[in-house]
Amino acid sequence: MSTCAIEYVLRYENGSVHRKSDELAEEEPLEIRVRGRAISVTMRTSGHDRELAAGFLLSERVINGAGDILDIRHCDGNEYDNVMNVQLAPDVALDWKSLTRHVFASSSCGLCGITSVEAVSKGFVSIVDESLKIGIAVLSALPQAMRHAQETFDRTGGLHAAAIFDADGKMVVLREDVGRHNAVDKVLGYALLNNLLPLKKHILLLSGRCSFEIMQKALAGGLPVVAAVSAPSSLAVSFAAESGQTLIGFLRGDRMNVYAGFDRVRFE
Amino acid sequence: MSTCAIEYVLRYENGSVHRKSDELAEEEPLEIRVRGRAISVTMRTSGHDRELAAGFLLSERVINGAGDILDIRHCDGNEYDNVMNVQLAPDVALDWKSLTRHVFASSSCGLCGITSVEAVSKGFVSIVDESLKIGIAVLSALPQAMRHAQETFDRTGGLHAAAIFDADGKMVVLREDVGRHNAVDKVLGYALLNNLLPLKKHILLLSGRCSFEIMQKALAGGLPVVAAVSAPSSLAVSFAAESGQTLIGFLRGDRMNVYAGFDRVRFE
Repeated sequence: MSTCAIEYVLRYENGSVHRKSDELAEEEPLEIRVRGRAISVTMRTSGHDRELAAGFLLSERVINGAGDILDIRHCDGNEYDNVMNVQLAPDVALDWKSLTRHVFASSSCGLCGITSVEAVSKGFVSIVDESLKIGIAVLSALPQAMRHAQETFDRTGGLHAAAIFDADGKMVVLREDVGRHNAVDKVLGYALLNNLLPLKKHILLLSGRCSFEIMQKALAGGLPVVAAVSAPSSLAVSFAAESGQTLIGFLRGDRMNVYAGFDRVRFE
Repeated sequence: MSTCAIEYVLRYENGSVHRKSDELAEEEPLEIRVRGRAISVTMRTSGHDRELAAGFLLSERVINGAGDILDIRHCDGNEYDNVMNVQLAPDVALDWKSLTRHVFASSSCGLCGITSVEAVSKGFVSIVDESLKIGIAVLSALPQAMRHAQETFDRTGGLHAAAIFDADGKMVVLREDVGRHNAVDKVLGYALLNNLLPLKKHILLLSGRCSFEIMQKALAGGLPVVAAVSAPSSLAVSFAAESGQTLIGFLRGDRMNVYAGFDRVRFE
């Protein structure tokens, strides 16, 4: 189950809009537990979770080989469950302090039995503006404006970009980074340091894909509209539907898919 | 300084190889400290670090607005330094437990004064095989083999893929995920659970870009060759040069750039 079917997507192309269904990359949180303690929560596509947990522990140098693992299984025996329990051999020395990133500070059973969006949504209160309307012409022009402003993308092919635009399509700030979450953090930080928060009448544009975490970051900045040049994940769409944000994917000139928050898009 | 110039790249195209220089997306670690304690290390492109730190703290709900920050500056006053100190207003309540991911368990001053590669390289001992040789014909065929094996990419456009091939170009395993680090962890986990480690005669292929962390994961699996369809980061190249791994980028049919570990590629 690496994709999710989405029933209701508005596709705009050739000057007209129609309803269609779509398939999106599935994104769900996975908590990895070792010796009864959560050591990681990663947003992943479900399937092959045993491999993911084993490979993660290898990469983090918790284990060195298959002999270090006595058992890996889903918490409740259901393969679509979002918690993996790893039983290590007794002689595996575990240096909790060396577990650097991905580490959940003191989580015990954060995700078990709670739906994923609730569990990782950090309790953001939706404060997105209801009244904003953005026309198709404004949206269509955004990717080109971003490309023009990018200093380095064409040279290296290795940088993600994020930009904030106002409702008229005027760019407020653009930042690039090797990590797309960082690019979003930078534009939000710019807005914060310049006292522009909350960005209630603004649009966040991404040069690549849109994940759950990016929707969450956008909501932290009060952004009602997120548009991505590539695909959103399934959980990004669920999150947008719940938060009330508008989510647009595959925005390429005058073609785009609207996945949530349809009322803010004015198909004139 | 969002790009790094690389002096020595071998470019293969139209049946011949030549030396060229290249520009890559710069990737360096940034440690963010709050109240004297490291709360995050992220791999980022330097520049706009104050914004990155502020936006990160907003996204993580540590702060709500500019008034919560008294000061943000680089540890040693040098803007290319890799440690940011954030001084929060005294009334900002800090719930360390709520800092979920990205959290450095109990780091104090891990990166200050140490070069970045050393600091985050986790002390992997290089065990990559020196004798392996891979021909251009084998490398050229890999992306197409990956595309054929991908179940969902064409449908969703939202999944990253990682695959392990043997030295003859035979695919051992392919996995997809919404996160590219997860896709790599899955193929490594497959190898571990099937007692295939270390993968001393194998190639890791990525559908997208290659970061420092992916080189590190590959080394954990003993992989001597990493090839990516898109660009590597600057730190991925530095890491490969140091670990002795071969790193190939922009692998597209019979065109490719070799960034490190040149001797393993047989340009016949």
